Amino acid sequence: MFSKKRTEPIINSLMDTDFYKFTMGRVVFERYPDVQVQYGLTNRTKSVRLGEHIKLEQLREELEHVRSLRFNNSEIHYLRGTNEYSERMFPEAYLEHLKNLSLDECQIEERQGNIILVPSGKWSTEIYWETIVLPIIDQLYFENLTRDLSRFELATVYAEGQRRLLDKIRLIRQYPGLTFSDFGTRRRFSRKWQDYVVGVLAEELPGQFIGTSNVYLAMKYGLMPIGTSAHEMYMVLAGIMGETDEGLRESHNLVLRDWWETYGWGLSIALTDTFGTNFFFHDMTKEQAKKWKGLRQDSGDPMVFGEKAINFYKNYGIDPREKLLVFSDGLDTESMIAIHKMFNGRIRHTFGWGTNLTNDLGFQALSLVIKAIRANDCGLVKLSDNIAKAIGDPADIERYKQVFDYNVNFTADCRY
Amino acid sequence: MFSKKRTEPIINSLMDTDFYKFTMGRVVFERYPDVQVQYGLTNRTKSVRLGEHIKLEQLREELEHVRSLRFNNSEIHYLRGTNEYSERMFPEAYLEHLKNLSLDECQIEERQGNIILVPSGKWSTEIYWETIVLPIIDQLYFENLTRDLSRFELATVYAEGQRRLLDKIRLIRQYPGLTFSDFGTRRRFSRKWQDYVVGVLAEELPGQFIGTSNVYLAMKYGLMPIGTSAHEMYMVLAGIMGETDEGLRESHNLVLRDWWETYGWGLSIALTDTFGTNFFFHDMTKEQAKKWKGLRQDSGDPMVFGEKAINFYKNYGIDPREKLLVFSDGLDTESMIAIHKMFNGRIRHTFGWGTNLTNDLGFQALSLVIKAIRANDCGLVKLSDNIAKAIGDPADIERYKQVFDYNVNFTADCRY
Repeated sequence: MFSKKRTEPIINSLMDTDFYKFTMGRVVFERYPDVQVQYGLTNRTKSVRLGEHIKLEQLREELEHVRSLRFNNSEIHYLRGTNEYSERMFPEAYLEHLKNLSLDECQIEERQGNIILVPSGKWSTEIYWETIVLPIIDQLYFENLTRDLSRFELATVYAEGQRRLLDKIRLIRQYPGLTFSDFGTRRRFSRKWQDYVVGVLAEELPGQFIGTSNVYLAMKYGLMPIGTSAHEMYMVLAGIMGETDEGLRESHNLVLRDWWETYGWGLSIALTDTFGTNFFFHDMTKEQAKKWKGLRQDSGDPMVFGEKAINFYKNYGIDPREKLLVFSDGLDTESMIAIHKMFNGRIRHTFGWGTNLTNDLGFQALSLVIKAIRANDCGLVKLSDNIAKAIGDPADIERYKQVFDYNVNFTADCRY
Repeated sequence: MFSKKRTEPIINSLMDTDFYKFTMGRVVFERYPDVQVQYGLTNRTKSVRLGEHIKLEQLREELEHVRSLRFNNSEIHYLRGTNEYSERMFPEAYLEHLKNLSLDECQIEERQGNIILVPSGKWSTEIYWETIVLPIIDQLYFENLTRDLSRFELATVYAEGQRRLLDKIRLIRQYPGLTFSDFGTRRRFSRKWQDYVVGVLAEELPGQFIGTSNVYLAMKYGLMPIGTSAHEMYMVLAGIMGETDEGLRESHNLVLRDWWETYGWGLSIALTDTFGTNFFFHDMTKEQAKKWKGLRQDSGDPMVFGEKAINFYKNYGIDPREKLLVFSDGLDTESMIAIHKMFNGRIRHTFGWGTNLTNDLGFQALSLVIKAIRANDCGLVKLSDNIAKAIGDPADIERYKQVFDYNVNFTADCRY
């Protein structure tokens, strides 16, 4: 099933990426076409020096191949026909933008064993690199780790992956009310492995496995493409509006308003932790709380967050059982089951399952992220509900903590 | 590449059919939802008795498998996103109809070595059987013909097919203005062979190979899905309006009006030969001739037809160089090149290449057709520009000849 030698580039379709790049991409294309953004790669797995595992030349070839890719007719048909969230969620002008999309060169270098990669240019184009670069680096890394295995030894790696997948499936089957999606593109062991896992889940857990964030795989398997927005929406808007403290504070709610105006109810799941969940709950208005479908939790303690969310809704006289929480922070079977048990019947909930789903074959996964770091020449900041995940210049972080009344003490290793 | 044993059913997606079934399907669904139609299978290759080659049980299994198929999300996305002919050419109500489509049982029996197959029921459902049954019967027939070949012998069959395909490609390359599409689903050697041929053409003749009538393959290869309408539109409307001679005569133009109202310019290629081309040119109004994109020729002498079409347009003061002829009757490389040479620069033209494209590996192809034979309990008639292709009860044929001023003497064997 899985051969030793790869005969194709890692990314072979511009659809082999996360759906939220398109949902955000449209908003950026329509509302912020001239914003300049710089992204940066961070390897949070300090024990691994990527430069020791990945040849720059190889990485460069993979990135250059991606630059030669274009959306084909069927891919554009598929996106045009996507209506799970709202009618015609991708208008013609945006589809045209995608058809003509040609990614800028992505400069890479090695410094002291680390790989430095800073895509920069127009936000409306650079936004697509993140979820393309991450699976490329992951796969090159794991190909190197398994390079010297014999054919049989490699087969046992996949056998272990299959065994673990079966354990997951058997456990999850015991909780028929637990639903989840694959969010594992960025951390996958390889393209083929994610493809295999998604295909298996579609067959084995049809009622509980509700979709995948990977648009190529959603199309291939007839699954629902899943995704809304990421921290970069808040971070970039904070950057371009943050000259004054007031502008900075207001940028957060503008993200929510932009989003609602663009997609309405269908895609109205708000990411809560960019500048701390406390500020989020302070900033989301009663009207927004009523209208929006739900919230996404991506850092901090999920149990604490769930209780906060329930109280938040109750305080506004909203029945939490009509609202949806999406948990997506470093999940595994056990944590999903625990969260499910805690909130079952109290608030609707589902899971976006990443690393531990698509990269669980016995190796330690990498915790790589690519985040926006500058916008129109302002440094960007993410605080999150886990201090270990904070990103930005120390002075900027201090300012953001003040402006957003941030007083989180929770710290946890970024396992994934 | 091509193994001896097939491990899958012949039809594995409801998209593995001709595009015109969907374009007509929408018109039938919206305008003629209650019409009852009966179809019949005709084997025009008299030397072959299908019952001696195909086991009914095998055929029944294949048809039952098709009945279990449903369109998946991605297929519906693709159809919803199809915009090559007009915006949103398939509205939601029709897509919903497709999603819920469940084909009626298709009764089959053997009589004196012939296979009798008469799908009957609502036109809006039965319409889909034609281009599903034909490739199934074709493939079962050719699987039987090659059943006793050794693996090596079978490999030489494909080698011969490849050699012939290469000859075609080399010849066609010499005429860069010659464009064509694959119309060969109904007569293909096998699903895999059509898939292979289409994949090769997409790579080898990207500028000249403009698409395929097979929706599954169009989606798979990012090609343009090609197709408009078939004789059954004219035949069924003639049947349901033909109580009086006037109604019968008027039914022909109603097909054109229905079609224009549904799809407008994008899909306005009129099939000309159902009741003879002479009547067609008499019946199409000047206004229609001006508006419609062009005409399709499917029987008779293509050279004669081309000249007639040019004169038809000139008589209305229309520049033929703005109009498009689609030739689709029993083509091969030589006839396409001859037609191309004759009309190059005089009238736009392209080719829908069927049997000889997808079933040219050294065996004689079958000339199978499935045609509507009754509608709301009236016998149906097709005359065409080739007497050998006429279909219907002799008395009905005589009446139609009178009503449509039919006086064609052209006869040619139906090679394909």
